[in-house]
Amino acid sequence: MSKTYDKAHELKQALAEDAAFVQLQDLHKQIAADDIARKMFDNFRKLQMSLQQKQMQGMDISPEEAEQAQKQFELVSQHTLISKLMETEQQMSMIIADVNKIITEPLEEIYGHLAEEDE
Amino acid sequence: MSKTYDKAHELKQALAEDAAFVQLQDLHKQIAADDIARKMFDNFRKLQMSLQQKQMQGMDISPEEAEQAQKQFELVSQHTLISKLMETEQQMSMIIADVNKIITEPLEEIYGHLAEEDE
Ligand SMILES: [Ca+2]
Ligand SMILES: [Ca+2]
Repeated sequence: MSKTYDKAHELKQALAEDAAFVQLQDLHKQIAADDIARKMFDNFRKLQMSLQQKQMQGMDISPEEAEQAQKQFELVSQHTLISKLMETEQQMSMIIADVNKIITEPLEEIYGHLAEEDE
Repeated sequence: MSKTYDKAHELKQALAEDAAFVQLQDLHKQIAADDIARKMFDNFRKLQMSLQQKQMQGMDISPEEAEQAQKQFELVSQHTLISKLMETEQQMSMIIADVNKIITEPLEEIYGHLAEEDE
């Protein structure tokens, strides 16, 4: 196996042990074990995803739908576990975005350089 | 800095030293230095990108456009440097796809597990 694959596995291991990931995993377990929290959160996720799909398909989101989403967001934000989960997911997203930015730097250098050649 | 970031930088370094990446970089340099190859390749890339954009916007690609793209592909494939570059890009894409699959495994485990809970 090449060094690239070895290092990818080491990064995977580091991510699996990252404080943010461990917390995310723990919060997901706690929410899965809590019927009310799980249902609240599932409903919120489903609403979010259906609105995101609409946006991606170029469909309009009605003021009523936007208001409903906002209300559901306020509702789930009151729930300590869900609020913590959303915060940790945000943190994890930032880590993943940073990681992607770091590991694609070599490719950016090639393609950024070629783009300059055209100017 | 966390272990995650350290490992991301180590993976970046491994990618930058990967045989496929070094070859990609070398071929890009050779093509950039070769006026005919560079123009052939730029034209092909531009045509490819404009057709991809059309597809993403849900627009139809005419049989004439498809034929033109096919002819350009056959033309650039005859050029040894460009043909090698396309092959190496394919190889690099597969490495990046593998790396992404490896490093997102921990997250897949959380979200895959939650999806099962719903069934
Ligand atoms: Ca160029
Ligand atoms: Ca669920």
